[in-house]
Amino acid sequence: MFTYQIKVEYLGTNFVGWQIQKNGLAVQEVIEKALTKILKNKTKVIGAGRTDAGVHAIGQSAHFKTQYKIITKNIFLNSLNFFLNKHDISVISIKKRAQKFHARHSAKERTYQYQIVNRNSSLALEKNKAWHVKTKLDIEVMKKGAKILKGTHNFSIFRSSSCQANSPIRTIKKITIKKNKKKITITFKSKSFLQQQVRSMVGCLKNLGEGRWTLDHFKKAFKSKKRKMCATPAPSHGLYLTNVSYN
Amino acid sequence: MFTYQIKVEYLGTNFVGWQIQKNGLAVQEVIEKALTKILKNKTKVIGAGRTDAGVHAIGQSAHFKTQYKIITKNIFLNSLNFFLNKHDISVISIKKRAQKFHARHSAKERTYQYQIVNRNSSLALEKNKAWHVKTKLDIEVMKKGAKILKGTHNFSIFRSSSCQANSPIRTIKKITIKKNKKKITITFKSKSFLQQQVRSMVGCLKNLGEGRWTLDHFKKAFKSKKRKMCATPAPSHGLYLTNVSYN
Repeated sequence: MFTYQIKVEYLGTNFVGWQIQKNGLAVQEVIEKALTKILKNKTKVIGAGRTDAGVHAIGQSAHFKTQYKIITKNIFLNSLNFFLNKHDISVISIKKRAQKFHARHSAKERTYQYQIVNRNSSLALEKNKAWHVKTKLDIEVMKKGAKILKGTHNFSIFRSSSCQANSPIRTIKKITIKKNKKKITITFKSKSFLQQQVRSMVGCLKNLGEGRWTLDHFKKAFKSKKRKMCATPAPSHGLYLTNVSYN
Repeated sequence: MFTYQIKVEYLGTNFVGWQIQKNGLAVQEVIEKALTKILKNKTKVIGAGRTDAGVHAIGQSAHFKTQYKIITKNIFLNSLNFFLNKHDISVISIKKRAQKFHARHSAKERTYQYQIVNRNSSLALEKNKAWHVKTKLDIEVMKKGAKILKGTHNFSIFRSSSCQANSPIRTIKKITIKKNKKKITITFKSKSFLQQQVRSMVGCLKNLGEGRWTLDHFKKAFKSKKRKMCATPAPSHGLYLTNVSYN
């Protein structure tokens, strides 16, 4: 058997998320069906990140095993994308990996980006692709909040009640907040994140930016480790899994 | 009567274009209906650029006349966008102008951007929002081609047969070609453009970038002033009217 890694882009709008579920169509399901058709053998796909319903990906990573050696990668990708394109999924690249490679377990770092459009008028071009926030956000105070989140901490406050991780301790290697005209992009890098962690952090940073929370309140909430102290998580449609890296 | 200028963003995908036509829904029509409802008086809207079917706008400009003085701009924009949002149109700003202001005739410069995604795999996140070109494009030779187009020339080759302009002479003040990962953005600035001029220029620049045309052939085609020498115009869904400026 050969192990292949694929890099996947998708518009999350019409999916229940990456992971197969009973209540609707999942990205994983569509890719598994296409691979099973092409490889003529039931094929399972394992993703690096279980993105929620509505969350998009620029660089989701996944792996599958097959007995066929894929020689002409572009032809393989073209056939695969022929089945995926109508679902707004595209496999961007494919790479042969060692037998033991595992998209989730072997991942060294995940990058997520959150997009906010900060203006009064509703969104036309970026509807379902960014969070529309009307109140003017103070980027400088949000950057101060981000600095507090950086590093190794107990992130219990940002953790969904259904999160199954063994520990709430995570290490955020990098958070950057950039503004380009009305668009604010917040980038997060970590080996892994808790369930809903990014959206929860963005929800709290937004409260800070709006002046609804002081920096003191933000610190207190973070230290409390209590989920009920968390702001409403930012909506899923502003979130993008942009990259997963390996050794 | 007061004259107001509005700045408009729209996703062109589901429209026959800016201008009212018999064969489908136009952006102009949707905005006129909404304004007529809000201002309780039949209101005409004149746009600066008649974008084709499928062409998007980040900064279309338009004007309308009304007997009401609009005092609270944000409330006015919110009511207007309430009617526009389901059509993927958003009015971003409104400005009182002199009586004689005319969105089309008073315009001093129009900026269009053309977006290409240059990769093998089909588009998921940017479907209908960029031109998917598979063959690797040589940006450097495209820049040389762009340099030839800059300045005052007879642009007959790039002019649609249905173009109604009096003269094929135009002055392109600026063309820039930028690449960011797989995305190529070509920006054009001119007082005005001929019908299909931008898409026709992009079609020829793409032939150049693909190596299908030499720079010599590009020059010869341009100098011929013959429409039949033009490449297939680039598809409308990669084109954005980004800005219209006035004195």
